[in-house]
Amino acid sequence: MATIERTRSAERIERDIETLAGRDYTLSDEAIRRYAYTDVYRRTLDYFTRELETLGFEVYQDPVGTLVARNRPRGEQAFGVGSHCDSNRNGGKYDGTMGVVTALEVCRLNEELGLGLPLQLISFLEEEGSGFGQMLLGSRIIAQRVTETELKETFRALDDERSFWEHAQSAGYQPERWRECSHVLDDLTGWIEMHIEQARVLQDTRNRIGIVNAIAGYVHADVVVHGRGDHAGATPMDMRLDPTLPLAESIAELERLAQAAGKGTVGTVGEIDVEPGIINVIASRVRFSLDIRGPDDDAYRGVARDIAAFVEQAAKRRGMHAEFTQRQTLAATPMDSRIVGALDAAAAASGEPYMQMHSGAAHDTMCVADRVPTAMVFVPCKDGISHDPAEQADPGDAALAAELILNAIASLEQISS
Amino acid sequence: MATIERTRSAERIERDIETLAGRDYTLSDEAIRRYAYTDVYRRTLDYFTRELETLGFEVYQDPVGTLVARNRPRGEQAFGVGSHCDSNRNGGKYDGTMGVVTALEVCRLNEELGLGLPLQLISFLEEEGSGFGQMLLGSRIIAQRVTETELKETFRALDDERSFWEHAQSAGYQPERWRECSHVLDDLTGWIEMHIEQARVLQDTRNRIGIVNAIAGYVHADVVVHGRGDHAGATPMDMRLDPTLPLAESIAELERLAQAAGKGTVGTVGEIDVEPGIINVIASRVRFSLDIRGPDDDAYRGVARDIAAFVEQAAKRRGMHAEFTQRQTLAATPMDSRIVGALDAAAAASGEPYMQMHSGAAHDTMCVADRVPTAMVFVPCKDGISHDPAEQADPGDAALAAELILNAIASLEQISS
Repeated sequence: MATIERTRSAERIERDIETLAGRDYTLSDEAIRRYAYTDVYRRTLDYFTRELETLGFEVYQDPVGTLVARNRPRGEQAFGVGSHCDSNRNGGKYDGTMGVVTALEVCRLNEELGLGLPLQLISFLEEEGSGFGQMLLGSRIIAQRVTETELKETFRALDDERSFWEHAQSAGYQPERWRECSHVLDDLTGWIEMHIEQARVLQDTRNRIGIVNAIAGYVHADVVVHGRGDHAGATPMDMRLDPTLPLAESIAELERLAQAAGKGTVGTVGEIDVEPGIINVIASRVRFSLDIRGPDDDAYRGVARDIAAFVEQAAKRRGMHAEFTQRQTLAATPMDSRIVGALDAAAAASGEPYMQMHSGAAHDTMCVADRVPTAMVFVPCKDGISHDPAEQADPGDAALAAELILNAIASLEQISS
Repeated sequence: MATIERTRSAERIERDIETLAGRDYTLSDEAIRRYAYTDVYRRTLDYFTRELETLGFEVYQDPVGTLVARNRPRGEQAFGVGSHCDSNRNGGKYDGTMGVVTALEVCRLNEELGLGLPLQLISFLEEEGSGFGQMLLGSRIIAQRVTETELKETFRALDDERSFWEHAQSAGYQPERWRECSHVLDDLTGWIEMHIEQARVLQDTRNRIGIVNAIAGYVHADVVVHGRGDHAGATPMDMRLDPTLPLAESIAELERLAQAAGKGTVGTVGEIDVEPGIINVIASRVRFSLDIRGPDDDAYRGVARDIAAFVEQAAKRRGMHAEFTQRQTLAATPMDSRIVGALDAAAAASGEPYMQMHSGAAHDTMCVADRVPTAMVFVPCKDGISHDPAEQADPGDAALAAELILNAIASLEQISS
């Protein structure tokens, strides 16, 4: 295992992070606000391009703007590292960007230490959806999980309603060649993405590193309970059809079901709309969202099935009617056990506290995993705060992550060569 | 007991109602929309003025526009009947207006049958709050439950933000004389207001008449539960501070407490705001409203006290913090037992199905009851629908109400004379 000068790596990572938090790289003075085809985004890609070219990497962008850098000619195999460098609209300095910066540090260390590992860095376009309201857009294009109609018509800029297609063309890209984006993954032997955790598991368990062994799948759904909007003062308790009662029972039941399912299953009601929403009127209708996730498809899908049945019964028992509508679902993404094992061995050798865990949040790595063996590395973020200017993470943890990623790739390349 | 030609009375009531639902009397083509100082409201008062002057009544308006009509000179005692003829902004034909129309029918019958009862009809200004966002405004001015600062500064038109004071002056009234409005009640020996029920108790129990023996008091309050807005996917169930759980427990507990309290106590959560209100974010904060009412002050206030304690405990048990803030409270208004008794005797004599009940909704009569013995009569409205163009009530029931009111007043006047 290589040992690195972690302090120096942490300093370089911090310098990159702070540079990219400067005025040239964000549309907002109060937050990081950076998304595709803006000047601040272009300057961010230029920064990475300069740094990587200095290391002797060949840098190019795919037909819609995902940045790719290689220290081997195209067509030769390499190991992938990277993340995304766009932010949500009211973002912090670390989400995404720290992952690309850490991947850059892996590339630097590889050269400095003369390890000669074949590497490919990727910075995916539009992970956060700030430009066009579409999460994981760059990696979904690479994975061909979009349609041409979506790119031409459906996906429109939040700023001006113009299509993704038009914006990409105006910015000098060639969206008509979007199918060729898939080649970005052609020569990868593996992929490791580093990201801040965006939750508080690492902080609360005092671990510096999380090795991700699965990315949670999810069911997103809506429930509508139809009640009767009677006068809150004039309608006796036993003459009501109050849809807030099935809502209440469902919130409590969702918690119970998720806890009973275990295996990292979680369930959340994040949106509640009450109509008409007036203090002295019994609700005529309640809508609420369900976010049910976990790394175990059977477990979280079971909770989704059970809560759907429960809300219908809870409404029916009170003479009301409920509708459960699935918005979206995506299966869990298991990580590659070889890569997870290599990261675990590297972490163990580092002597630093770490754990294996799953990712509850979605990441570009989900789209990479279709074709390439993948894993992720998490570092803690303070109090789990993310997507907020208050986001904080420690460059020292990122330097440690760079060391583990470097050593894991080295051990994997050794085995395969 | 006088018997009236109910069919003819029903026809007259229907004619009045339909006239006042016509184009000259509402600002909207799709609903009744009528409030103080608009042309349509002025025409409505003119209609009642003409009809009452035809019966020989002296008609005047108080300094801000409440309509008063008497068949005895001012200074002589009379029995009060009436309601309000403004509507909410998306209103129906019956709420308020049917009460004034029925009071007019009582006046007509008194003349036709030569009963010679001393009567005073009142149509209160701005019961619904459509003009200035203030419910029961005319009757509160009469009861002096407002301040001059409120009239001059605080109460502002929803349409143009100008003050009540300015609007009253522009319309030719004398708001500077508002304290004299209290004289409207000076010479009343009693007061009966007829109103549609605005709930479904009468319909569901197949009664044509409700004799109101109390108007519910209420506590209006807000509860805020402070949680922590973590990532819905990445935060394990046992690391959450999710304020929707105390919300759920409180909704269920409020139902339990109201049912346990009995005595007509009701409790409703009509408003729920979730922040940030995003499907994949655990709520950081939940606010919900409480509307707790009943005719028995001890009973509903006990529920308010108990739910306030409950929400604090429910939040605390989960490591969160809840705040209970009372918005407004008003004691219950008992009706006068003599007037209720007289109405009950008249209803019994009519042979029609009736019941005694309390009013869960607020009415101008609450402000009259400070100084005058009062009661109310309810008639059914279809499915309890009110404050909506779909509002429906039966002129036949209103004619029956007119008969009972007439007979009750006659019996009360007989006793007192």
